[in-house]
Amino acid sequence: MESIDYLAEERKKAEFNVDEMKIVWAGSRRAFEVSDYISKLVADDPDLSFIFIECHRGIQGFSKEERTMLPRKELFKNTLRKSAYSWKHIIDHQLSEEEAERLRYFVDEPAFIDSHLGVFIPAIKGQGTKEQLKKWLPLAYKMQIIGCYAQTELGHGSNVQGLETTATFDPRTDEFVIHSPTLTSSKWWPGGLGKVSTHAIVYARLITDGKDHGINGFIVQLRSLEDHKPLPGITVGDIGTKFGNGAYNTMDNGVLRFDHVRIPRDQMLMRVAQVTKDGKYVQSDVPRQLLYESMVYTRQALVTYASGALSRAVCIATRYSAVRRQFGSQNGGQEIQVIDYKTQQSRLFPLLASAYAFRFVGEWLKWFYTDVTQRLQANDFSTLPELHATTAGIKSLTTTATADGIEECRKLCGGHGYLCSSGLPELYAVYVPACTFEGDNVVLLLQVARFLMKTVSQLSSGKKPTGTIAYMGKIEHLMQCRSDVEQAKDWLKPSAILEAFEARATRMSVACAQSLSKFDNPEEGFQELAPDLVEAALAHCQLIVVSKFIEKLQQDIPGEGIKQQLEVLCCIYALFLLHKHHGDFLVTGYITSKQGLFANEQLRALYTQVRPNAVSLADAFNHTDHFLGSILGRYDGNVYPKLYEAAWKDPLNESDVPDGFDEYIRPLLKQQLQTARL
Amino acid sequence: MESIDYLAEERKKAEFNVDEMKIVWAGSRRAFEVSDYISKLVADDPDLSFIFIECHRGIQGFSKEERTMLPRKELFKNTLRKSAYSWKHIIDHQLSEEEAERLRYFVDEPAFIDSHLGVFIPAIKGQGTKEQLKKWLPLAYKMQIIGCYAQTELGHGSNVQGLETTATFDPRTDEFVIHSPTLTSSKWWPGGLGKVSTHAIVYARLITDGKDHGINGFIVQLRSLEDHKPLPGITVGDIGTKFGNGAYNTMDNGVLRFDHVRIPRDQMLMRVAQVTKDGKYVQSDVPRQLLYESMVYTRQALVTYASGALSRAVCIATRYSAVRRQFGSQNGGQEIQVIDYKTQQSRLFPLLASAYAFRFVGEWLKWFYTDVTQRLQANDFSTLPELHATTAGIKSLTTTATADGIEECRKLCGGHGYLCSSGLPELYAVYVPACTFEGDNVVLLLQVARFLMKTVSQLSSGKKPTGTIAYMGKIEHLMQCRSDVEQAKDWLKPSAILEAFEARATRMSVACAQSLSKFDNPEEGFQELAPDLVEAALAHCQLIVVSKFIEKLQQDIPGEGIKQQLEVLCCIYALFLLHKHHGDFLVTGYITSKQGLFANEQLRALYTQVRPNAVSLADAFNHTDHFLGSILGRYDGNVYPKLYEAAWKDPLNESDVPDGFDEYIRPLLKQQLQTARL
Repeated sequence: MESIDYLAEERKKAEFNVDEMKIVWAGSRRAFEVSDYISKLVADDPDLSFIFIECHRGIQGFSKEERTMLPRKELFKNTLRKSAYSWKHIIDHQLSEEEAERLRYFVDEPAFIDSHLGVFIPAIKGQGTKEQLKKWLPLAYKMQIIGCYAQTELGHGSNVQGLETTATFDPRTDEFVIHSPTLTSSKWWPGGLGKVSTHAIVYARLITDGKDHGINGFIVQLRSLEDHKPLPGITVGDIGTKFGNGAYNTMDNGVLRFDHVRIPRDQMLMRVAQVTKDGKYVQSDVPRQLLYESMVYTRQALVTYASGALSRAVCIATRYSAVRRQFGSQNGGQEIQVIDYKTQQSRLFPLLASAYAFRFVGEWLKWFYTDVTQRLQANDFSTLPELHATTAGIKSLTTTATADGIEECRKLCGGHGYLCSSGLPELYAVYVPACTFEGDNVVLLLQVARFLMKTVSQLSSGKKPTGTIAYMGKIEHLMQCRSDVEQAKDWLKPSAILEAFEARATRMSVACAQSLSKFDNPEEGFQELAPDLVEAALAHCQLIVVSKFIEKLQQDIPGEGIKQQLEVLCCIYALFLLHKHHGDFLVTGYITSKQGLFANEQLRALYTQVRPNAVSLADAFNHTDHFLGSILGRYDGNVYPKLYEAAWKDPLNESDVPDGFDEYIRPLLKQQLQTARL
Repeated sequence: MESIDYLAEERKKAEFNVDEMKIVWAGSRRAFEVSDYISKLVADDPDLSFIFIECHRGIQGFSKEERTMLPRKELFKNTLRKSAYSWKHIIDHQLSEEEAERLRYFVDEPAFIDSHLGVFIPAIKGQGTKEQLKKWLPLAYKMQIIGCYAQTELGHGSNVQGLETTATFDPRTDEFVIHSPTLTSSKWWPGGLGKVSTHAIVYARLITDGKDHGINGFIVQLRSLEDHKPLPGITVGDIGTKFGNGAYNTMDNGVLRFDHVRIPRDQMLMRVAQVTKDGKYVQSDVPRQLLYESMVYTRQALVTYASGALSRAVCIATRYSAVRRQFGSQNGGQEIQVIDYKTQQSRLFPLLASAYAFRFVGEWLKWFYTDVTQRLQANDFSTLPELHATTAGIKSLTTTATADGIEECRKLCGGHGYLCSSGLPELYAVYVPACTFEGDNVVLLLQVARFLMKTVSQLSSGKKPTGTIAYMGKIEHLMQCRSDVEQAKDWLKPSAILEAFEARATRMSVACAQSLSKFDNPEEGFQELAPDLVEAALAHCQLIVVSKFIEKLQQDIPGEGIKQQLEVLCCIYALFLLHKHHGDFLVTGYITSKQGLFANEQLRALYTQVRPNAVSLADAFNHTDHFLGSILGRYDGNVYPKLYEAAWKDPLNESDVPDGFDEYIRPLLKQQLQTARL
């Protein structure tokens, strides 16, 4: 098919090698090749001949076109089809675990299969004994059973210790009795639970011999493996429609109640603690910390996903800002490209820079996670608290910024961003729960704050902080120093930026610690000062993102113009934050008003530098048009004809005269309302 | 029906008279009574016996219950029904124009009828000649024709002067030929256009005698009044699905193309300019400024709507924060109410205060609008530029803050806020276009900035600024002065707050003016410094909101405890902004770091003061459960049983085993994918 590239002029302006940047973005040549292969496998799928033979229905292959228009039942049914179809691809193409994960990512539709592979299986792996792994994993890997992770309850979210579901051991039958004692104990939210899962890992209070041993996990079968009907004592269903068109409505987040459901004793996950045949609760010598491993794994993975989601929105907004023109036509010529307006640049380019920043901090976090888990194997728990705090904090920072950033990109597309065909409404709706799940973002920052306060309090005892918190070891200097920036371009020096963020983070933490020390009851103080602590934690996390970007630039990065572009983006990210939070830097006297103005001046100059490269920097994300799912973000920039075409596909346009005309419009026009049936 | 009030304890804590506050919120006793009467008329409607007789279908009366689950066609058809039903109410109950507007507001569903009554009719009134009013208004008032306002085009939004549709006068037939010369000239977005409107006011370039006279309005019939089919030469349809479930998808925003459509010459709206029979373009002596009156009217009305929308979200989040408990259970007792957490308070209470602040500034803006229009009648245009700038700025400030505030309230409800049954996803999706329509919010702030720069530049010439910009007359003092706050409670003084905001706004404007003066080409400077100008404009607008709240408190406000509560809210609003933008106050040296910390300390104390009154302050909005449309925000706080109940109404729960099980799940479980039709 012939096509014109309406963005060709933009692409010619690039001052760097886009193909090389694609590899930097992907993390490695291999990662790029895998993603590129799989994303095209998904995007080009309907053209594969074996699909043509099999598909005779309206919606084919991995198409996302009609998704935002489908009613819930049809939407869900189509997701079931796509999930089976994905699984078939995984088998047919003999995809590796990594490739299979990529495939699900590029299929881009939340489904039960994500809960099964992403949560159910890892939970069994992490919490099951060897015998349990041997029994359950083969069933799960082959999808002979489909499972989900049933933790949260209608009345209980963040506070796992408050769960009400009970698992009472009955020694007479060697069984646990799983029960939902109250309405608020109904399991609520688990993905894949509502309509698909045959099994669940249910978290419940373990009660044996009349004693409550706290929360443990149990494998419970929910549905018949023959007719899929819920088993006796099980009430299960979907919790209802969620935010947005398409979006997470492809997932059967579920509600689940137990009426004295019995399971064999060996379906309690017993790696960390077990119940013996005679009802004794016995803890194993496996460290409890290991239980959190999967939680930490998920959080670090969410950081990479954040950069992915933000990059999609930024790619759409950047391309459309280059296509769209508004005002400024002179002598009847073309209007000005929206991307040339400084107001557009000052909102868009920091997000472009953020996408790259989050990519690199995600890369580093993955390394850190791997490093810590290797230490754990050797019983070295020393870096675990830092990993906990860092994953919590960076998950919070990146997911909040990404959710807000997607909405900002939508607004940067003007009115058309409000159309589902822009892809942005669904991207926002499907992304935003990341701010709440796997730890509410404010609660997570409070965890970071606790880590910071502990670090500060230990400084006087001579304990030397390491890793991401090592800067606190320079506390005396950081509390006193002043920025030595004398002109705008001094802000381009990584050392100037780094010290500014270190000084700010240190001073905010120390100020909180000082305020806390005035309270007799430290916990009361922590509650009272929580909003300030959240701000201090955010300052620490922003420092981490900035410093990891700077560290990345200290590596050898080949490719024409690559490093220069990344340096510009790194400075934009840092100086944008400095400008946004300039009060934090001013309040402690680290910078003067004038130095703040220099930063702003430099930022403007950087926007001008990035401008000719913007479209190509968005191209470097290597998103296919299928994955973007956005007419505004089309690679070829052919926006308006395609918007126009898409409109006619709306169900409302099936007829010129709308359903309901005779009943409700004609009586209005003909003044016959009194006899109309309304 | 018996019901328990789960929030009764909260309501007992109130330190003020809620009924009196309802009147303050409504603006007057009369306004309260009208709103109260109409909102209950809508909310209680299904109980009225005459409805019981007429309604035998699933969805009755003004019910909103299933709205977020309906597929587009059914949703739209139901909106047509509700619109006719609303109109019947308006006739049957002989509602006044004001009451009819209230009814549409409380029916709470965007529909063609809003465009017809809210834009089509006012445009004819504003731009038509007496003869045209006489001909068209009776038809429109009786709904014998239904109209919309067709201005924006596929390629042209903010820049009205860039519209491409042409209206070429043909003197031979005394007609205009309306034509869409390009794809991007397709009319795009007008509400009510897609499926319902029989007529449109079309904005097009008037061409007569080969000369382009710019944009004028024309009344064009689009559809047959008999069978509703589009007339020859007219292509019209819906532009497709928009953001969110339900939300604006009840509106048929439309696309419209003309292929040389002819209309009589007298269908050009000719109040300001006319074309004579022989093709002469003649301007009348009616001032062109009057054309903007309806735009200004709409913008000021949007401010009151902003407070309304924000108050709904705040009401939901406040009530649910009092219902929801999380963590902190001691000795097996109840967990802590989420509203008692300082992190929750520091996010929620500023929004509660904002809702009140926006209410009062909206009230004032309405007065200001009326005052200016009265002056216009007397040919006094002196206050028009200030009205333009103020409505633009306050529209921008309040709609942005409201959209963000609704999302923040949704997040404050935790995971359950993501369910459509919380009411918040739809509220956000339906509200957020207010940031873009009637002037993009950033573009509007740039208009304010132009007004500010003009004011500053005229100061030296001795022109004394008045009204909202009068403070600039004290420029010498405001550029030099320092805050005299010596302790936290000094920030409670209105004079302390006012001077801080005035000094900040003045200094930011002056700084921009100084930077601008360094550019040879002022327009180039304006473009380059646009992001800073936007910030200066926002500072000016925030000052207006703060000062109008303070002025409100200088009035006599009767009722037990009312004034005290409003004083607390006013200080929260102002000090929250001061804390959020503390860099602005610090950078110019108006406050010291210590004074900034005092503000923060005082803010915390104010949160504690407002806490016992929070639920009652939300009650004072007088929202019915029907209008709120939120299970989390139910007046009686009976959240969990109703959430549970609502889940089962989802279409996915129509059967235990989902549609698609046999085709797509069983083959997975039974390892029969190879033979499945996917």
